[in-house]
Amino acid sequence: MIEPNDLTIDSFQARLAKRESHTLAWWQTCQARIQRYEEEVQAWEHIAPLKFAPRLSEKSQLLHGVPVGVKDNVDTAEMPTTWGTGGYLRSPGAVVDAAVVTLLKRQGAMVLGKTVSTEFAYFTPGKTRNPHDLSRTPGGSSSGSAAAVAAGMVPLALGTQTAGSIIRPASYCGVWGFKPTFNTVTFSGIKAFAPSMDTLGWFARNIEDICTAFSALTRSVVIEAMPDLRGVRVGLRNLPGNVTLDPDVERALTYAAERMEQFGARVFPLPLDARYDELVAHHQVVLAYEASQTLSSEYEHYAEQMGTKLVELIEHGMAICYADYRKSLIAADQLKHALSKVFDKQIDVILAASAPGVAPEGLHATGDPVFCRGWTLLGVPCLNLPLSKGREGLPVGVQLICDRWQDERLLSLARTLMA
Amino acid sequence: MIEPNDLTIDSFQARLAKRESHTLAWWQTCQARIQRYEEEVQAWEHIAPLKFAPRLSEKSQLLHGVPVGVKDNVDTAEMPTTWGTGGYLRSPGAVVDAAVVTLLKRQGAMVLGKTVSTEFAYFTPGKTRNPHDLSRTPGGSSSGSAAAVAAGMVPLALGTQTAGSIIRPASYCGVWGFKPTFNTVTFSGIKAFAPSMDTLGWFARNIEDICTAFSALTRSVVIEAMPDLRGVRVGLRNLPGNVTLDPDVERALTYAAERMEQFGARVFPLPLDARYDELVAHHQVVLAYEASQTLSSEYEHYAEQMGTKLVELIEHGMAICYADYRKSLIAADQLKHALSKVFDKQIDVILAASAPGVAPEGLHATGDPVFCRGWTLLGVPCLNLPLSKGREGLPVGVQLICDRWQDERLLSLARTLMA
Repeated sequence: MIEPNDLTIDSFQARLAKRESHTLAWWQTCQARIQRYEEEVQAWEHIAPLKFAPRLSEKSQLLHGVPVGVKDNVDTAEMPTTWGTGGYLRSPGAVVDAAVVTLLKRQGAMVLGKTVSTEFAYFTPGKTRNPHDLSRTPGGSSSGSAAAVAAGMVPLALGTQTAGSIIRPASYCGVWGFKPTFNTVTFSGIKAFAPSMDTLGWFARNIEDICTAFSALTRSVVIEAMPDLRGVRVGLRNLPGNVTLDPDVERALTYAAERMEQFGARVFPLPLDARYDELVAHHQVVLAYEASQTLSSEYEHYAEQMGTKLVELIEHGMAICYADYRKSLIAADQLKHALSKVFDKQIDVILAASAPGVAPEGLHATGDPVFCRGWTLLGVPCLNLPLSKGREGLPVGVQLICDRWQDERLLSLARTLMA
Repeated sequence: MIEPNDLTIDSFQARLAKRESHTLAWWQTCQARIQRYEEEVQAWEHIAPLKFAPRLSEKSQLLHGVPVGVKDNVDTAEMPTTWGTGGYLRSPGAVVDAAVVTLLKRQGAMVLGKTVSTEFAYFTPGKTRNPHDLSRTPGGSSSGSAAAVAAGMVPLALGTQTAGSIIRPASYCGVWGFKPTFNTVTFSGIKAFAPSMDTLGWFARNIEDICTAFSALTRSVVIEAMPDLRGVRVGLRNLPGNVTLDPDVERALTYAAERMEQFGARVFPLPLDARYDELVAHHQVVLAYEASQTLSSEYEHYAEQMGTKLVELIEHGMAICYADYRKSLIAADQLKHALSKVFDKQIDVILAASAPGVAPEGLHATGDPVFCRGWTLLGVPCLNLPLSKGREGLPVGVQLICDRWQDERLLSLARTLMA
């Protein structure tokens, strides 16, 4: 079902500048794709009517005329928000858009609709299916955003990650997914889940568009490819490191390593001590404790309508004592600094598994975020590279990881790899 | 106008247990105080009707029957929220209460009303006056909460601090004000301003109630006084350190130092290098950059109704580049860790000025948060001690500061000092 779409945001801007296209062209294309595939993929919670395309004035922006999907846990003033609840909690429209929506609109982006989220971006799945195999999960929690981008319904879609909610669905759906350094883009107007880790990110079908969105949202410089990767030190390390990998994931990691070596990089196993493996457990403590605080009002009034897993998490969090929560946060904080020293001295980038394998069968669950929990708690930028196929031709991604605030370096490395 | 109110939350609970009082007693007392003083003090944006006192069931909670004031930047489902805008932005009631409101209600607290905030918790003042001198500012941004507690209208009120919005008004109004370690209590449902620093805290008329609220919100152990302060090392250091202090502030610091020495503590100047003084400038960079992101939607639609200073801050933030923002965050992060080492080796607590002097005259501004900016950026817990009087008998506070996550130690030290 996937049809490759080679148009990048930059090339669309170039077409507009040469008057080879018009502002609404991409909007119309996306609407047509949605009309064709949405019944199967079910990526959207709400879609803007075709004829109500936003009017744009200036033409100098980075995202002029670019349709974007906005995850359903992000406030929008002109569209409803349901936070993946299926409607037991519903806002007909927020007082104002979430801040990131305004930042996107300022750059000329046009909000095409709200994409399906799992319940409050936790585990209870929405209706979305994996475009590569409709019987499989697209992953979560940013299910609709990953699937919509994969199905060519939209070139760019927002996601959020608190455990593995961007990297995992990107891996399952075969698209690029980027979780920048924690706190890079404002979370204002987005439903919090575990505020020490909640991070806004995005999906695209190529690395160029991932970079353009980063430049647009940070008002930062354009990210260029390097001539090659000579001198770049790539450390291989999964979090946790003590698990047997699925052969599909092994192959994806090997392919990525070889590709990096072809560009001149040096790839070697990165020794990180056992404290790093404990991050997975610390992540679960912080997640449960913070979710139980953050969603206390929703739990108070809607516990009976909530999914079982969410109720379990919240009640587990209510039983965690403050001292244990604090201990996990302090452990993570110490490892953030320890990892910075590793990046200073031993490596430039880490190569790791994005997910335990290809997208699991069934729509009853969204897969396991285990390989993302530790990195998310560390706040480091993570990028899913959709380079490999596993069993049945299904996508298997790998992730590249840099130190906090090295996002530009990470994106530049990936861009080089795709040059 | 101030009448001391010696009732603590714990003693009220004891009275309830002995049936010497009833659940609605404090609610009624507070309503009477409001009726008597609100016309002068103007601390409230919205007050619950006297007869609509919430019904409580369980009696085993820490805050049973305790009326609380909730700052007007905190979502409430049953009361309007205006974020200190004077009404140009107004929510008739949120979909759900902010999480902290539910956490308070679970402990039996009763929301008495919404207290006046400056515009989006920045500098444009609301209507509130200082109960100690109605011609003076109560400070900001948590103006109404500090003034309401000072005027005996409520025993406990929530505030938020991003620069000096709890410690400064507490100092000006002569009440206890506590800003816990960053991220101690969930900010979910509270309007963000600069999310790297936004911290929820509270005001009370005695240290016991500050401690009880901490125990209630963290479900943590009761904080006890120590026998004395022998062995406790107190480092004297203001941020910034290179300014001449007002004599009122000098005297307040001297008084606090002597009092700590009487309890056995050792007080000495703490040498912190010049990088710490640069935190004030870094705070301003982070504040402006994040506010310009966070309030982008409000700026887009309401810039013409916004106060001049807020517009200036947002536009200044829009001109700060991402690389400079990142530099300031990294500098702060490094000093957080450096300060932890200082706390490990040299000191137990820091004693510092809360504000540049007594509350300034006039209601056109809320005073200068300069002595709080650095500490807030570091994320450390800060406690205003209302121990001294300055010119014209006006309150002058000092603050005690511990390392991140040492909140219990900080509160215990202060409790000892008041035993």
